[in-house]
Amino acid sequence: MTPIVLALPGNEVLAASLVSRPGAESGLIELRRFPDGETYVRLETPVRDREVILACTLERPDDKLIRLLFLAAAARDLGAARIGLVAPYLAYMRQDRRFREGEGVTSSYFARIVSANIDWLVTVDPHLHRRSSLAEIYSIGTDVVHAAPRVAEWIKANVEQPLLVGPDAESAQWVQDVAALADAPSVVLQKTRHGDREVAVSIPDVDRWRDHTPVLVDDIISTARTMIETVGHLRRSGLRPATCIGVHAVFADDAYRQLQAAGPAQIVTCNTIPHPSNAIDLHDILAERVSNLMSPHATRSESPGRD
Amino acid sequence: MTPIVLALPGNEVLAASLVSRPGAESGLIELRRFPDGETYVRLETPVRDREVILACTLERPDDKLIRLLFLAAAARDLGAARIGLVAPYLAYMRQDRRFREGEGVTSSYFARIVSANIDWLVTVDPHLHRRSSLAEIYSIGTDVVHAAPRVAEWIKANVEQPLLVGPDAESAQWVQDVAALADAPSVVLQKTRHGDREVAVSIPDVDRWRDHTPVLVDDIISTARTMIETVGHLRRSGLRPATCIGVHAVFADDAYRQLQAAGPAQIVTCNTIPHPSNAIDLHDILAERVSNLMSPHATRSESPGRD
Repeated sequence: MTPIVLALPGNEVLAASLVSRPGAESGLIELRRFPDGETYVRLETPVRDREVILACTLERPDDKLIRLLFLAAAARDLGAARIGLVAPYLAYMRQDRRFREGEGVTSSYFARIVSANIDWLVTVDPHLHRRSSLAEIYSIGTDVVHAAPRVAEWIKANVEQPLLVGPDAESAQWVQDVAALADAPSVVLQKTRHGDREVAVSIPDVDRWRDHTPVLVDDIISTARTMIETVGHLRRSGLRPATCIGVHAVFADDAYRQLQAAGPAQIVTCNTIPHPSNAIDLHDILAERVSNLMSPHATRSESPGRD
Repeated sequence: MTPIVLALPGNEVLAASLVSRPGAESGLIELRRFPDGETYVRLETPVRDREVILACTLERPDDKLIRLLFLAAAARDLGAARIGLVAPYLAYMRQDRRFREGEGVTSSYFARIVSANIDWLVTVDPHLHRRSSLAEIYSIGTDVVHAAPRVAEWIKANVEQPLLVGPDAESAQWVQDVAALADAPSVVLQKTRHGDREVAVSIPDVDRWRDHTPVLVDDIISTARTMIETVGHLRRSGLRPATCIGVHAVFADDAYRQLQAAGPAQIVTCNTIPHPSNAIDLHDILAERVSNLMSPHATRSESPGRD
C-alpha cells in the first residue's frame, strides 16, 4: 500500500518533496495543546497496513519529541505497518561522551528513545565526532545523506576562485573533502599557543590567496563563534570577504545576525532546517533515498549523494 | 544503600519532605539548556547501586518529559539500582479513549514511555475516569495516595456547616466519599434539559441549606469552567458563598483569577502542584509511602490515607 507522509509543523516543504516522487501520498495530522498544556494528536488519514513517514527536522528538539513519540504511537496503534522518520537535522549528537563525572550521554539516550518508537531514520550529515556511525547508538535502520557533493556544486557555480578554509585541525578532513569535490584548493588555519591563554591564528602562505574567495564550511552553525572569529581573522589578513556555508542552520539565539555583522560576502546553508539562509537544496536527495527505502529491490548505488 | 532523592526544578519542597524521613538523602542535579536548545543533565551525587527517587510533579508535562527521561537514563547508566518517580500530579490521564477516529490515546502512550524508563511511580488521585486503576496502562509498580481524608479533615477544621456540592452526576461518588469522611451532608445538582441547548440547573431542597456553606470539590481544577458556573449558580440561589477545593491546582491560563472573580468564599488546593492556593498538605503522606516502598517488609496498612 502507498506510504503516507505526515508533516510535523514547519516541515511542509520537506513533506511536499517526499511525496513528489511516485509511491507516496501526503496525510493530514491534527496537533494541538489542551489548555492544561497537554498535547493532542490525531491522524486524519487512515494508516492501517501502510508505511508512515514522519517528516520532522529536529533542531530545538525538546518540544518536538513528545509530538513525534505520540504520533508514532498513534500510527502504530492505528495499524501502521512501519513508521519512519525523515529528520534532515538530527538532534542530540553532540553529547557523545561523559566530559564530566555524572553527565548524561544524551546522544545515546535520545537514540534509544527514538529507536524504541520509530522503525527507520533518514538524516543528513549527523554530527559524528567521536563515533564512526549512527549504528553505534541507533538500533534501527538509518540512512545518511551527505551534503558535501551539493555544497561543492554550489561553490563551483557561485564562488569565483574559491579557497576552502578550515578553522582548525578538526575540520581538515571535511574541508578537504569538499575542496576535492569542488576542484578547489584548501587551507587549514594554524593555531599557535603563546602561554596559557593567547592563541595566534595564522594562514599558511597568505599572499598566495589574495585573489581567492575564502569559503568557510561547517556542518552545524549554532552559536557561530568559530565562524565569526574566522571571518574577522581572514578579513584582517587582507583576504576577500569570506563566504560562509553551513549544512545545518541551527543559529542559536542571535547568532545569524552576529555572523552577518562579521561581514562575510554571504551566508549559505542547506535546507535541512528552514531558514532565510537556505540556498542548497537536499530535499530531492532525501526524497530519492526515502523512495529507495520504500522499494527494497532498488539498488542503493542509484541514489545520489553517495557517489 | 541509602536512596537518593533528586528534585526537578520546582519540586524542592516535595523533595525536602521525602528526605525528612529516615532512610533517604537528597542529591544534586545540574540541568540546563545549551544555546541550540538541547538539554544537558548531570547527576552531581553518585548513584551507583542506590535507589534513585525523582521528585517531579507533572502539570504542563511536555517540557518535563525529556528531562525526566534523560535523568532516569543517566541514573541507570551510572549504576543506579532502581529509579522511582514521585509525581503528585500525574499527566496525560484525560485522553483515555479515542473520542474521534484517528486520535492518539495519549494516556496509554505516556504510561508506556514512563514505564519503559522508570521502575515505580507514586502519585495522588490520578484522573481515572474510564479506567479502574493505573495498572491498566502502567506496567510498573504504582502506588496511589488518596486526598479525600485530608480534604475532609480540612473541611471539618475550616468550614462551618459544610454542604458538599457535586456539580453533576459524574461527581456524585467522589463528593459523597468526602462528605462521609467530613460527617457532612451532600447534594448533587440536577440538570434539566429544555430543548437542545437550554439546561436548567437546580439544587434539590434549596431552602434546607441556607445556613450551610457550600463546598465544591473536584480532582483537577484546570479551566475551572464548571466550578465557576456552579459558584455563580449557588450564589444566585441565595446560598452562602461557596468554598472551592481542588486536589490538583492545574489552573490553565487565567483560570485562577477567573475563579476568584466568581466570588467564592475561598479557593483551596492540595500541594500536589505548587500554587498560592495550596492549603492541604499531602507531602508527609507521600514521604511515608515512599519510605514504605523503600522498606519492603513494612506493612501497607500503616500508611495513612488508606484507612
